[in-house]
Amino acid sequence: MLHCADCGAPHLETLARWRCDCGGPLSLPLGPGLTRAAVCAGEPSFWRYAAALPVRPDARGVYFGEGMTPLVPRRWGGRRVDFKLDFLFPSGSFKDRGAAVLINALAQRGVEQVHADSSGNAGAAIATYAGAAGIGCTVYVPAGNSVGKRVQIAACGARVVEVEGPREASFRAAARAADEGSVYASHNWNPLFAEGLKTVAFELWEQYGFQAPDVILAPAGYGGIVLALDRAFQELLRAGAVDRLPRVYGCQSANCAPLHRAALAGDPARAALDLSETLPTVAEGIASTRPVRAREVLEGLARGGGRVVAVAEERIVEAWALLARQGLYVEPTSAVAPAAALELLESGEVPRDARVAILLTGSGLKATERVAAFSRPAERPPLATPA
Amino acid sequence: MLHCADCGAPHLETLARWRCDCGGPLSLPLGPGLTRAAVCAGEPSFWRYAAALPVRPDARGVYFGEGMTPLVPRRWGGRRVDFKLDFLFPSGSFKDRGAAVLINALAQRGVEQVHADSSGNAGAAIATYAGAAGIGCTVYVPAGNSVGKRVQIAACGARVVEVEGPREASFRAAARAADEGSVYASHNWNPLFAEGLKTVAFELWEQYGFQAPDVILAPAGYGGIVLALDRAFQELLRAGAVDRLPRVYGCQSANCAPLHRAALAGDPARAALDLSETLPTVAEGIASTRPVRAREVLEGLARGGGRVVAVAEERIVEAWALLARQGLYVEPTSAVAPAAALELLESGEVPRDARVAILLTGSGLKATERVAAFSRPAERPPLATPA
Repeated sequence: MLHCADCGAPHLETLARWRCDCGGPLSLPLGPGLTRAAVCAGEPSFWRYAAALPVRPDARGVYFGEGMTPLVPRRWGGRRVDFKLDFLFPSGSFKDRGAAVLINALAQRGVEQVHADSSGNAGAAIATYAGAAGIGCTVYVPAGNSVGKRVQIAACGARVVEVEGPREASFRAAARAADEGSVYASHNWNPLFAEGLKTVAFELWEQYGFQAPDVILAPAGYGGIVLALDRAFQELLRAGAVDRLPRVYGCQSANCAPLHRAALAGDPARAALDLSETLPTVAEGIASTRPVRAREVLEGLARGGGRVVAVAEERIVEAWALLARQGLYVEPTSAVAPAAALELLESGEVPRDARVAILLTGSGLKATERVAAFSRPAERPPLATPA
Repeated sequence: MLHCADCGAPHLETLARWRCDCGGPLSLPLGPGLTRAAVCAGEPSFWRYAAALPVRPDARGVYFGEGMTPLVPRRWGGRRVDFKLDFLFPSGSFKDRGAAVLINALAQRGVEQVHADSSGNAGAAIATYAGAAGIGCTVYVPAGNSVGKRVQIAACGARVVEVEGPREASFRAAARAADEGSVYASHNWNPLFAEGLKTVAFELWEQYGFQAPDVILAPAGYGGIVLALDRAFQELLRAGAVDRLPRVYGCQSANCAPLHRAALAGDPARAALDLSETLPTVAEGIASTRPVRAREVLEGLARGGGRVVAVAEERIVEAWALLARQGLYVEPTSAVAPAAALELLESGEVPRDARVAILLTGSGLKATERVAAFSRPAERPPLATPA
């Protein structure tokens, strides 16, 4: 049984309904969580946490051995943090976590056609899993976002529709299409996607020796990861598998920060910007003006003592370059959380002895043309010309 | 102690020497191999096989939690095969295996500057690990290869030098630079790189329940993977950890197939093509005209009953599209081995009940502009334009 995250109205799960009559998004109740004994340690993928997920791949399901991404220590801001390399997925971003659970669930219900809207990464993940499941797929993407993501979605057999205007114009195009016999496989609206994202929390829990880290930083556009972290650690807390919640920071670009404004105002309804209230950002993956689950996101962050952080554009680009020089080649969107970490460590808001996990969410290979603009050009000296 | 792979002359290991006086490449003796008990099962990365490697990361070393890439079953050519998703590495290709071992070894010897030549993937891997180790790096790449690889190498802080002419022109440029105080960190010449590549064999061994699969297919340019598979399984056989060698197929594009010609002629010296003997290929990562370890490659393949396969260009593109439609989004080079598998399964050379592992070696995100040429364009219908 689902309920509306805004008005609380109950809803039976159906494939056609993707929001409440009041316009609010639908949510699932918290799941049973996990204990250490419930983890299938012999399974190398995140499906080892299947006991805490509402679906598992059946014999005909889609399986990429996904998840269990490395957690690697690095010096950052003069101290040790742990980077979670959550871009090491078949489609090149952490969104595969959500797509794996959502598409397997839809495939088990006999769905043959889906559509979605996406800045690129979620669309690539949905297209990847839909393609593997033999499900037809259409993805509405903002015109002008990274070519690499668009080409990738098409290669996986999906129809790509470019939509002029802000990120939300792609949403409106997808929402209109929802009446045409195809299921709206939305990473923001369909709660099964967030169920898949929970697996990053379970992995952190296991990688920190079956404990919660003190602090987790993640990029936040619609806030999907933040919501999933909150849900998963709440479940673990209820199951007695952790003794407290981690402090989660949802990190936005200051050039497009609706959640940050809403948090400052103490009013989730303020999480809606007009285009005139934004500036361009290299963090295209989180350049969302109207996140639909703002209330849940702000409540989730507050529960563990975290908050929304807005980071200046030049700090994002600086952090991106620092990461790349360490071999952490991520898309610029993924640099927002590390940039926020530098500020929080500098200010002392994050104590020096805290165990800090920073999620790196998308591959740099997705954003070649953006990255090229940051980097020095190749040389062609006469030395190198063959005789 | 090293020895020349061509004339057998012994050499002490030194940083400056990268080939024998006779011009041949240097090789290491076989290592001790592994037994199941020697695997550090608690280590999530391929460093669990450190007992079989000539280096391990020390406290100051570079560590990305690398390896243990998924092995996933799929239908292919009407039967089951297993794809090894060996592009799920920080730099987006399996070359990180070699770079991890080579760069950690050089860092432990106090090296501060390296250079390499590469079609792109090895260069990106070397640049990634050198950057993380704080080692300066220059990479010579063929002009006109994928932009994504070039941009990536520069982002990791390396100097990129584009060299006009065939792949071998980049090698000659790098070889000339070897006298200038920088260590030549070559994935083809330095035997420590192949030591790192051995880890893919150890992973397959563990993933098949500590047995060898029957058949392994891999792309072959210089033949580095083929050599590493041969070495690793020889070591496992000597250690009593497997009871036979797998049959390995080294797969080339028919448009640039020096190893295939040499194999047909029964003469490793024939593994040298003039440019006039090649045609353009989408498999840029293996478009090498003069592989330097041809004799070792052909002997290694023969040891397990395998051989070189040359695949027609249109079959490579077909296989690439089939993979992408299954969500296996790899660079075109990586489609050569799956294309060869289709032919070998069709002809019956690979029996239907064989356990077949196919290595997928590079991310499709590395080759956006090539992939774009294969795919249909995005749509911009009036429907999707916001009101």
